[in-house]
Amino acid sequence: MKLYEALAAELAAAIHAGELRAGDRLPSVRQATANRGVSASTVFQAYYLLEGQGLIRARDRSGYYVSHGARLLPPEADTPSHPVDEAAVVDISNTVFEVLESAMTREIVPLGSAFPGPLLFPLDRLGRDSGAAARRLDPWSTVDDLTPGHADLRRQIALRYLAAGLQVHPDEIVVTNGALEALNLCLAAVTQPGDTVLIEAPTFYAALQSLEDRRLEAVEVPTHPREGIQLDALERAILRHRPKACWLMTTFQNPLGGLMPDAKKRALVELLARHEVPLIEDDVYGELYFGTRRPALAKSFDTAGLVMHCSSFSKSLAPGYRVGWALPGRYVRAVARRKLTTSLACPILPQMAVARYLEKGGYDRHLRRLRKILQMRQTAFAQAVGHYFPSGTRATRPVGGYFLWVEMPEGVDALEIHRQALSCGISVAPGPIFSAKREFTNCLRLNYGHAWDERTEAAIKTLGTLVAAAK
Amino acid sequence: MKLYEALAAELAAAIHAGELRAGDRLPSVRQATANRGVSASTVFQAYYLLEGQGLIRARDRSGYYVSHGARLLPPEADTPSHPVDEAAVVDISNTVFEVLESAMTREIVPLGSAFPGPLLFPLDRLGRDSGAAARRLDPWSTVDDLTPGHADLRRQIALRYLAAGLQVHPDEIVVTNGALEALNLCLAAVTQPGDTVLIEAPTFYAALQSLEDRRLEAVEVPTHPREGIQLDALERAILRHRPKACWLMTTFQNPLGGLMPDAKKRALVELLARHEVPLIEDDVYGELYFGTRRPALAKSFDTAGLVMHCSSFSKSLAPGYRVGWALPGRYVRAVARRKLTTSLACPILPQMAVARYLEKGGYDRHLRRLRKILQMRQTAFAQAVGHYFPSGTRATRPVGGYFLWVEMPEGVDALEIHRQALSCGISVAPGPIFSAKREFTNCLRLNYGHAWDERTEAAIKTLGTLVAAAK
Repeated sequence: MKLYEALAAELAAAIHAGELRAGDRLPSVRQATANRGVSASTVFQAYYLLEGQGLIRARDRSGYYVSHGARLLPPEADTPSHPVDEAAVVDISNTVFEVLESAMTREIVPLGSAFPGPLLFPLDRLGRDSGAAARRLDPWSTVDDLTPGHADLRRQIALRYLAAGLQVHPDEIVVTNGALEALNLCLAAVTQPGDTVLIEAPTFYAALQSLEDRRLEAVEVPTHPREGIQLDALERAILRHRPKACWLMTTFQNPLGGLMPDAKKRALVELLARHEVPLIEDDVYGELYFGTRRPALAKSFDTAGLVMHCSSFSKSLAPGYRVGWALPGRYVRAVARRKLTTSLACPILPQMAVARYLEKGGYDRHLRRLRKILQMRQTAFAQAVGHYFPSGTRATRPVGGYFLWVEMPEGVDALEIHRQALSCGISVAPGPIFSAKREFTNCLRLNYGHAWDERTEAAIKTLGTLVAAAK
Repeated sequence: MKLYEALAAELAAAIHAGELRAGDRLPSVRQATANRGVSASTVFQAYYLLEGQGLIRARDRSGYYVSHGARLLPPEADTPSHPVDEAAVVDISNTVFEVLESAMTREIVPLGSAFPGPLLFPLDRLGRDSGAAARRLDPWSTVDDLTPGHADLRRQIALRYLAAGLQVHPDEIVVTNGALEALNLCLAAVTQPGDTVLIEAPTFYAALQSLEDRRLEAVEVPTHPREGIQLDALERAILRHRPKACWLMTTFQNPLGGLMPDAKKRALVELLARHEVPLIEDDVYGELYFGTRRPALAKSFDTAGLVMHCSSFSKSLAPGYRVGWALPGRYVRAVARRKLTTSLACPILPQMAVARYLEKGGYDRHLRRLRKILQMRQTAFAQAVGHYFPSGTRATRPVGGYFLWVEMPEGVDALEIHRQALSCGISVAPGPIFSAKREFTNCLRLNYGHAWDERTEAAIKTLGTLVAAAK
């Protein structure tokens, strides 16, 4: 983060916290320059940024003041969920599809989308790497690089783990068609139809669909929007339901955006190991942190080989390349064999292109830029929600990823808002698709990973109006 | 086929049929030139070809004679299988994996391989098309071209169907990660665990693995090596076992290589429609015919939407690209949704590259060359089997594809031959992996799709020695 951005973020935080109030005068440029030892241009840039965000306003010749009606963040949604503690066959897939399929056109403002804006990614450079890979393709690699996948790619993935403090041998990695295939392969490796699986509440709808597809029973466990699944409730659920697996996102959970603290991740892994419950860890947002360091992987604390870590490059580098992988611990052979049985292997060129990109360097630079953009979009987006949605609305404050979880006032029907929004050309992801029991009826997951522009702001304004009318 | 090849094929057929016998003199070049109205060089080329195949031999100044010990084809394996008519849970997958995994290195002579030699394919041109596609990639296509797949590719596939006489709308096609994923998606769309599925005997081992994976029961139906599954037995099995699907290869069946005649395909489709049994048609070898026209698709006779046709470009154009598809008839929506749930979508660049290749033309020229090479390799390969394997050996005579099914003398244990061959650096595919009940204990599937060279011939000689010793 640049100096002026840091200064702006600090001032914005003071405004959101109420330390600076509407009408308060900000330090003059000269004062700020002197107090902080930064250049005048840094202060100017910070103030321009805050002005653009609607937080402060210049008055002729007298300096900058905190705006009246400054766009404050909505109050934080920070109470844990309390789902019904009953195992149940899942039956939500049709609803999920109806919601998703309704929004698959470019004309719709994609606030319900699961993907960040594709322009955020170095697709040009990856394209050149694809071309180079294609020119260098050894025909025999079409046979040699079957599952578990292209050796160079697996080596590069292992190197990234090493940088994150986790020693991994390339042979422990199985390349898959995106993280979703990895998750499904892992789930299938440790469950039989009729088994019970523990999940978060709310949870990523694709997890629900996978459970439904395999006729597994779901038990939803109370989950805190900031800190993830609650371990005491998790242990009670283990003792009561004897699950065959636990499927979680411990980093920037979809849809809440919560980040489980490192110590809690360690306690989670130890708890599950004590009960011999495999953990399927979906880590697709792990690289999209706004803080100063990569959050730990639950896998880092895995001494029993029970953590099946799944990830991909789809959200961090190469959308559309469908390059994902599993690191399935003691289940690596079972996962590889299942991959061979269900889809044989992944295409070789996308794997080679990504491996080449990683080898040549630049991934971290790209990620730093991506994280900064997402963080800035989150601020603008959350402020707009605070501004346009009616009082009684709360929202999460994730420190990574690109989803905001919005709790609308009690009684507002998210599925109805979804339908009305769609007729206005806006998609949203309504709460009930994230729940086996169709709970979270007044919640929305909104995607701030697309461009912050007038069209997006207008869409939030429209949503706010719809919600206010439904209140 | 060129003139000299046609002439050589005709003479080879006469030798194999016994019309020309060992020691018989072939017409002189002058006679042949005059009789057939072809040039002397055509006759020379034909004779050279036959000499290279070991069928004829030149004697100084006196012309060409049919060789003593000419490499005759082995007697044809042409009796239908007679599997046990009992539904059974499949439990063969471990054996299949042990056999396949043992042979996954380049050092092994890959007679047990499922893939043809990768040098047979235009990977260079496809590589250039990949590069061009990467340069032209619209970032939004990473979102737009999710399942059912890249629109241009689906249009090109529909055009190929049109050329084969089948009118298909691109929206009826779901792009998949190779044919294997298509087959699995189709199977899952029409079955529940515990259901019964009818298959051929022998059948492609991946079909067995898919049934095992989904806990389906298999009923193996008698199958003729030349003409495919027997319809009277099929109807009896339908009435007795009430199957939820029938999974067949009607064109160049793996492993037998049989080709069901067009009229029989029509009767098959009508029979299954009468009983409302969906047909999963695996057509991955359909383009590899040696005859003058593409064999009909069972799908062509489908008026009820019950035929789920699956294919790919992996065996005909683009190995390693994993571009396959399903044409699932009335189940298209179910298949697309299942694809979304299990692996979301296929990578976009391989789809674009193949679409671009097809659009620019040259596929048919490539295929003509490929078919000719495979046919010539089959002759050389089958003759070597006839030459080196002990009497009592029989083999199929497929008119397409790249597999030979070899019946060794009664009592020879194919799994034992597999182990011995492996220790000699040769892979084979032993008969029992093609059977839910581990039948075909004296059979091998051999792949003639790799280069015909000294190493391959030496491998067949070694195999023949092993078989003779085991007899």
